[in-house]
Amino acid sequence: MSKLEKRLGGQTVVLESKPKIIATHSVVGKKESEGPLKDYFDDVVKDDQNGKKSFEKAETSMMIKAISNVIKKGNLKEEDIDYLLAGDLLNQLTSTSFMAREFNIPFFGLYGACSTMAESLSLAGLILDGGFANHVIAATSSNFSAAERQFRFPLEYGSQRKEQAQWTVTGAGAILLGRYGDLPYLTHVTTGVVKDYGIKESDNMGAAMAPAAVDTLYKHFKDTGREPKDYDIIVTGDLGKIGKSLTENLILDYGYDIRGVYTDCGVEIFNNDDNDIKSGGSGCGCSAVVFCGYLYKQLMAKKLKRVLLVSTGALMSSTSSLQGESIPGIAHAVSIEYM
Amino acid sequence: MSKLEKRLGGQTVVLESKPKIIATHSVVGKKESEGPLKDYFDDVVKDDQNGKKSFEKAETSMMIKAISNVIKKGNLKEEDIDYLLAGDLLNQLTSTSFMAREFNIPFFGLYGACSTMAESLSLAGLILDGGFANHVIAATSSNFSAAERQFRFPLEYGSQRKEQAQWTVTGAGAILLGRYGDLPYLTHVTTGVVKDYGIKESDNMGAAMAPAAVDTLYKHFKDTGREPKDYDIIVTGDLGKIGKSLTENLILDYGYDIRGVYTDCGVEIFNNDDNDIKSGGSGCGCSAVVFCGYLYKQLMAKKLKRVLLVSTGALMSSTSSLQGESIPGIAHAVSIEYM
Repeated sequence: MSKLEKRLGGQTVVLESKPKIIATHSVVGKKESEGPLKDYFDDVVKDDQNGKKSFEKAETSMMIKAISNVIKKGNLKEEDIDYLLAGDLLNQLTSTSFMAREFNIPFFGLYGACSTMAESLSLAGLILDGGFANHVIAATSSNFSAAERQFRFPLEYGSQRKEQAQWTVTGAGAILLGRYGDLPYLTHVTTGVVKDYGIKESDNMGAAMAPAAVDTLYKHFKDTGREPKDYDIIVTGDLGKIGKSLTENLILDYGYDIRGVYTDCGVEIFNNDDNDIKSGGSGCGCSAVVFCGYLYKQLMAKKLKRVLLVSTGALMSSTSSLQGESIPGIAHAVSIEYM
Repeated sequence: MSKLEKRLGGQTVVLESKPKIIATHSVVGKKESEGPLKDYFDDVVKDDQNGKKSFEKAETSMMIKAISNVIKKGNLKEEDIDYLLAGDLLNQLTSTSFMAREFNIPFFGLYGACSTMAESLSLAGLILDGGFANHVIAATSSNFSAAERQFRFPLEYGSQRKEQAQWTVTGAGAILLGRYGDLPYLTHVTTGVVKDYGIKESDNMGAAMAPAAVDTLYKHFKDTGREPKDYDIIVTGDLGKIGKSLTENLILDYGYDIRGVYTDCGVEIFNNDDNDIKSGGSGCGCSAVVFCGYLYKQLMAKKLKRVLLVSTGALMSSTSSLQGESIPGIAHAVSIEYM
């Protein structure tokens, strides 16, 4: 069999055509707009309901706003977009499906829990580099109130949150990619395998996802021959404080020290003194708005020249948790540069 | 902007390298194994629980069986598979996520409701034609008892089923694709847009999905310049009797008469005199096992030379239905030949 030049072997491919990120747009909730990254977000909604009849419809409206705006920023029209790749946390991708009916764009629905931003960005990169599209949008969202009700308890119960718990980000991010321009570009995609080390507490997703993050990071370094120092920043999302600490320690055993360049979207997005937050942020919207807001703008400003985004997902459902199952984790890595 | 040779314009791309279908494997439940296509399925489980503690675990076990067997049929090992693209109907892809942890294969989770077989096959085709992989597996599943409990009522309620209702197929199908061999191959992928004509009854999914099926069929014919007679068979999945009738009538208005070559996986899979079935079969597993069983074997035998598979999905959730929302529909088409 002839060797594929685009495959480095292992789990990583090189995107030779360097698909460009033309624009991003982020929409966040109130708490996110008061956090340390507040200056980087494009739009803020005043609460989790955003004037809609339900949290789900609010999440849909935020995703519509992110996508509409990213198309405008690219000076494009809906008909110029060849594919829309999107997903969220809700059952049957409720927010995404109802968002997608508002756009006349060929649509692939994705589910990777909080890894969906990197999943959609990976597939967008492959589709563009394969020569199948001129423009692709990758988008994800989450909404704290919709997610709490679905995965844990209705907010009205006023349940106490454990220290390991993470706070689902209310936010939506959309990334518009294309083939041309002097713009930040994707260079490598490392697609993760599912790892399950037996963690059963859905309040402790960081620990459940850390082995997947470590595995994908290790594979990325091994496949590409790169080292942590080759990146200005390596960002997982969303492991929170506990998962971040586990990840940076576990990967030392594989011979890589990422501590000097490493952070986690869930650790960065909220104020440290906010007692609600516990271990940090989570949700598809977390790495979406941290990338679309902070990271992309730092790339554009050339304050960051090479970024490794490693979105992580906890693939349990309420049903699997009730049935006593542990939490499978996954992580996908995308390398983005602007030299 | 330079024209992309792989894009026909509209919503269709040509897969110039003609990705090959090396093998398929289908696993079905008891009712499916007694239907008109019984001779074409590879494995049968004796009931919806398949000896497991839950319907969800049963569905996972069926998907594992389909994937393990398709790898064996291709004389390959797990490490030869570059990507696994899979999805199911359950919240957070419960069956798929727990299946994926059993394989050390880079994994993308997909959600397109009953359109997921064509969605995964489309993305597998793009990834292979783009030169990113040597082998890709596309897989989906559904389980009647797990789906009924989640989307409608626990079986113990003994609810009456409406005449328009469809019966979720218990089944899993896996398709192994590669780059070489004298084998059936993919030629075109037409990716659907979401259509919502306001149908709100989750008992009448066929009517909700028909406009999406018509739209994707029309775009496929328009983009490729092909006509219905260019296909030996055009198969939607899963519109059931009502959706099939709507589709063949609605597309007449667009100038295409598909009636001579058209059927629907949901119409074909169960015995007509089975009073449970009502309008026909549904579920991600339906078009999966009809393709992996009947259609692929007819292609291999050269009894069918050109097949258009158009899997259709109803993108509602229990939450959206309770909130009074209508049902967005989607359909993806993949053209498969063996001349």
